Amino acid sequence: MTNTPYLRNLIIETPSKPGNFAKVAYAIGQLEGDIGDIQTIKVGTLSTIRDVSVQCNDVEQLDKIVEAINAIGDGIQVQAISDDVLRAHEGGKIHMKGKVEIRSLGDLRRVYTPGVANVCKVIEKDPQQAQFFTGISNTVAIVTDGTAILGLGNIGPVAGMPVMEGKAVLFDQFAGISGIPILLDTSDPDQVVETVKHIHQGFGGILLEDIGSPHCFEIEDRLKAELDIPVMHDDQHGTAVVALASTLSACRQAGVKLEDSVVGQIGLGAAGLAISRMMMAYGVKKMQGIDMNDKAVERLVQYGGESVGSLEEIMATSDIVIATTGVQGLIKPEMVRPGQVILALSNPHAEIQPEVALKAGAAFAADGRLVNNVLGFPGIFRGALNAKATKITYEMLIAAALAIVDSTKHGDLVPHPLDPNVHQNVADAVEKVANASLL
Amino acid sequence: MTNTPYLRNLIIETPSKPGNFAKVAYAIGQLEGDIGDIQTIKVGTLSTIRDVSVQCNDVEQLDKIVEAINAIGDGIQVQAISDDVLRAHEGGKIHMKGKVEIRSLGDLRRVYTPGVANVCKVIEKDPQQAQFFTGISNTVAIVTDGTAILGLGNIGPVAGMPVMEGKAVLFDQFAGISGIPILLDTSDPDQVVETVKHIHQGFGGILLEDIGSPHCFEIEDRLKAELDIPVMHDDQHGTAVVALASTLSACRQAGVKLEDSVVGQIGLGAAGLAISRMMMAYGVKKMQGIDMNDKAVERLVQYGGESVGSLEEIMATSDIVIATTGVQGLIKPEMVRPGQVILALSNPHAEIQPEVALKAGAAFAADGRLVNNVLGFPGIFRGALNAKATKITYEMLIAAALAIVDSTKHGDLVPHPLDPNVHQNVADAVEKVANASLL
Repeated sequence: MTNTPYLRNLIIETPSKPGNFAKVAYAIGQLEGDIGDIQTIKVGTLSTIRDVSVQCNDVEQLDKIVEAINAIGDGIQVQAISDDVLRAHEGGKIHMKGKVEIRSLGDLRRVYTPGVANVCKVIEKDPQQAQFFTGISNTVAIVTDGTAILGLGNIGPVAGMPVMEGKAVLFDQFAGISGIPILLDTSDPDQVVETVKHIHQGFGGILLEDIGSPHCFEIEDRLKAELDIPVMHDDQHGTAVVALASTLSACRQAGVKLEDSVVGQIGLGAAGLAISRMMMAYGVKKMQGIDMNDKAVERLVQYGGESVGSLEEIMATSDIVIATTGVQGLIKPEMVRPGQVILALSNPHAEIQPEVALKAGAAFAADGRLVNNVLGFPGIFRGALNAKATKITYEMLIAAALAIVDSTKHGDLVPHPLDPNVHQNVADAVEKVANASLL
Repeated sequence: MTNTPYLRNLIIETPSKPGNFAKVAYAIGQLEGDIGDIQTIKVGTLSTIRDVSVQCNDVEQLDKIVEAINAIGDGIQVQAISDDVLRAHEGGKIHMKGKVEIRSLGDLRRVYTPGVANVCKVIEKDPQQAQFFTGISNTVAIVTDGTAILGLGNIGPVAGMPVMEGKAVLFDQFAGISGIPILLDTSDPDQVVETVKHIHQGFGGILLEDIGSPHCFEIEDRLKAELDIPVMHDDQHGTAVVALASTLSACRQAGVKLEDSVVGQIGLGAAGLAISRMMMAYGVKKMQGIDMNDKAVERLVQYGGESVGSLEEIMATSDIVIATTGVQGLIKPEMVRPGQVILALSNPHAEIQPEVALKAGAAFAADGRLVNNVLGFPGIFRGALNAKATKITYEMLIAAALAIVDSTKHGDLVPHPLDPNVHQNVADAVEKVANASLL
């Protein structure tokens, strides 16, 4: 028994019959569970679903309560057990809302038939008018095949949906963009490309999300080549933008000039390779990398980077080290070169703890807790959509990174992600560059 | 010159430079246009888009004003001209909203990383939990290929988007469903079926919308067979539900029993064939039909209906006549049989005016102005989703039609579409039947 109360929410379905919920309450009370708030989630004709907050002493007591409720019979069932984090996701985090309310037959005739026919005809005559009379140019598809959800790996697109909904929430709140999760049941590049192409006309942009490596490379390259709307794989380029911004902040604090430094990338997965490409696009002349996968190293070399023989060598020869391996403690303190800038970005466990790296002589060290790509993608797409850009170029991404750096308070690595100015600054910078390249 | 003012809204883009809008205002004033409300639609770094209400005397004056604005130069341009109906569609009618607001880093950590990982893991372990912790089971894809948009024909999916957005508004307002337009760039049944299958996991149901005949039949049949979520082509079955409800109301008023009547369907397109099938599913024993297209008649016969030789014959032998041909004035008064029930549903011009039919001896006559499928689809999907139904069956559709009849005031043909009780009643009836068939 512990003194900290164990608080959970039970999602309970009962047939809609008077007295059924009393049986549930009785079962909870008999086992000394303490009932808190009760919310009705669904009132159907035949069954009702309620969210019942229950306080227990421990998980064993809760398990007994769940068993007792399920044993009542009559169709009464605990459908799910929710906690504080899960509660924020109950029922999903997004909803497609009408921006107009229909309050009269006149409204209905304007918004729907017959009035809508006029709007259709205007667009039929001049397709460009769709950007004014539909939401297409403000809508971004958030496309995943579920093969690389966060650090969880290939758990499938449905299990990944909470992440996609989260992205849509961030798009809405930080950029006023309507984000639509698209869950693909295939990872085959041909099928993914075909599917996205077949549905792309409904969107102003495509955010590829949590698609595994290496198929993410082919998918992104082909979609970029074949579609005339912005396409970006966030786990590559969104992450690379924030990594570039963090590196620039770190260089500023360590008094180092990034473009004249030797940069070493440890781990050349989707994120690591994209960071390397971003560094070279920014102007880093010597970019070296290492990975256990030879194909990944080959890719870096194709893009103009250099292969390095060993972890010891890359640590010994790089002024700036960025690690994205997912391997906790990979970088030993004795490998650190005095004056080095080290960003060990793996989450939740870094390749080297910042305090350990600093003690070993690093001029600057940070881990990945702050390097959140929420700083990038909302503003990047806002800017690209504002400019009616057909592509997201390296120039636009570098402008986004510089805007993040400019929005960073002295002494910090990155700005606070809830600062609305950051997203506005990123959007402005991206729009400006996109417009300039259109001229 | 007329005394009725000619009021339009000009969507004007100006480079974001002080003084630019003054030039626009001057140009409008010089030509004696009267400036009303001005709304800023977009403030970008480089350009601003405003919606400027302008009152003129006639279209010629407005044209001159638009010319004058476009002649200013410096990148100042009238992007679109909007009227009262178009205004309701400006910027699109829907937006994907976050249901949670992120106000602190704690919120961000709960809604997005790292907290979201726990939610993903719960769903990975038990995919059923997705119905509680994502919005999937409350989301319906509104899928079109743009080949049969309203009565406008094959104008493409982008020009059809205002209709799809309208459907999403109605889903939201009348059924609390999140409706997502999906615009397909293909009408090939193989490609449509493949595409919808590849993205179906993100949705609790599929509404097929404004897909032309005959490819709509194959597409719907195959999707129904291959997916385990409800699929419904609204232009067939949604329309048929409302047509059945109207026919039942008309029969009630004319004192006729539908199942014992001979029903004649004139026009066997997607809607006409679906109405015929619905009538037979309801219990009509003698269902006859006619169409200029032999293939369409064949389809009716396959489903158990009978072919009739001529328009005169079907009019002479049917107790109840339903027409969906799109041909104004097709039914001549002399064809009307005394005591007949006639529903001439083509919009906006009926096959016979109700007053003409009544004068010619019909017991009841109506046109299609009231037979709006908004009465059907929101409640049908609400009920199907509530019941976690995997299909929408004829039993469910007939229950929906009966619920519409029950919600109709005596003397009316159908209920008022803005009466929220109708949609609730339809949903309840559909859920009840769906649940009963699951037992």
